[in-house]
Amino acid sequence: MNRVVVEKKVLNENQILAEQLRQRYHANGVFCLNLISSPGSGKTSLLERTLERFPKNTRVAVLTGDIQTENDAIRLARAGFPVKQITTGGTCHLDCRMIEKHLADWPLETLDILLVENVGNLVCPSSYDLGEHAKVVVLSVTEGEDKPLKYPSIFFKAELAVINKIDLLPYVPFDIAKARENIQKIHPGCEIIETSCTTGEGLDRWMQWLETQRERAVGTAVR
Amino acid sequence: MNRVVVEKKVLNENQILAEQLRQRYHANGVFCLNLISSPGSGKTSLLERTLERFPKNTRVAVLTGDIQTENDAIRLARAGFPVKQITTGGTCHLDCRMIEKHLADWPLETLDILLVENVGNLVCPSSYDLGEHAKVVVLSVTEGEDKPLKYPSIFFKAELAVINKIDLLPYVPFDIAKARENIQKIHPGCEIIETSCTTGEGLDRWMQWLETQRERAVGTAVR
Repeated sequence: MNRVVVEKKVLNENQILAEQLRQRYHANGVFCLNLISSPGSGKTSLLERTLERFPKNTRVAVLTGDIQTENDAIRLARAGFPVKQITTGGTCHLDCRMIEKHLADWPLETLDILLVENVGNLVCPSSYDLGEHAKVVVLSVTEGEDKPLKYPSIFFKAELAVINKIDLLPYVPFDIAKARENIQKIHPGCEIIETSCTTGEGLDRWMQWLETQRERAVGTAVR
Repeated sequence: MNRVVVEKKVLNENQILAEQLRQRYHANGVFCLNLISSPGSGKTSLLERTLERFPKNTRVAVLTGDIQTENDAIRLARAGFPVKQITTGGTCHLDCRMIEKHLADWPLETLDILLVENVGNLVCPSSYDLGEHAKVVVLSVTEGEDKPLKYPSIFFKAELAVINKIDLLPYVPFDIAKARENIQKIHPGCEIIETSCTTGEGLDRWMQWLETQRERAVGTAVR
């Protein structure tokens, strides 16, 4: 038995479950995003700002993954929408079994948007389809503009790259034009939005992108 | 066949090779460090500053891991010491097979210090013993002081935690006292050094730590 065979088996099992989830999302008109980044790139902050901007009657929920701690669920629950923590207990990514289990008592027909925050890891989560409509990769300007070249899989698979923490640009040696160029090298045509969760810059564009994608995916306005 | 069994087999094979590497390092008086962090925490910058500070006759070499690109090896080779890139091609961590293969034409008796820069990933590399004398975890202040609690495995296993990019402290909401407290919660007694590869702060202490650990491990001064 070699590692490649094993990885394929694990991935294939996940892929079957991902198709089932995709069908369930489709049948219930749920738009699902899978947010992926390094630890500390600002996924949770982006989701906090996102939830704050939704009208209170938006039918949105969040699943947030971490190896340990319920910290992110506690932060995100402050906005008043349903949030659940998925604690993987060591596993470096979310998979469909975890998603299914945590959706068990959330009837999908009561939701329009499901935001999934993956474990902080720029490598492994890109291999696990969660049945989402789109993957979003978040890269912060403190990480360096070479990251799309070094971690090509997630930049290739993501529909959108969010370049976050742009308020820190004056203090770090980050060449944002080069970063955009590197993203396009790996994934020509990839959409890119620059954001700061501190100043709010770029967040309107991000909310517009989210709504446009949702409309395209499920063909209705947010109820 | 379940995933746990598979992971154990892969890990056990690595563990056997790790013991062999450890014996070879011991027999040749080579001190080996395994540097682990998120993407963009500054492992390569720390190694650049480290190599610059070594006397030119230091018998030091570097193996640097990445999914793709030779960028880090090119950066590190400028200091004039032997450097090799390990390109994993998708694998999220370094393992002993990769180390062994890249050491094949580096006679260990010609080295005193081997610095291994792992793939940027705060999760998976912590599970793979590379036969090193110590793991060093690098956390940058832009990532948030909660990371030791969320990624406990590597903070538990590391002999030293480097808190890097402290020059950015005025611009980010990072509570360094809380970060130190969180590291101690996961790993009581863990050594912590605060550094900036931009201003050079803390690098003397880091170089001292490295030399003290090396002396303790192999019992001689750098030739």
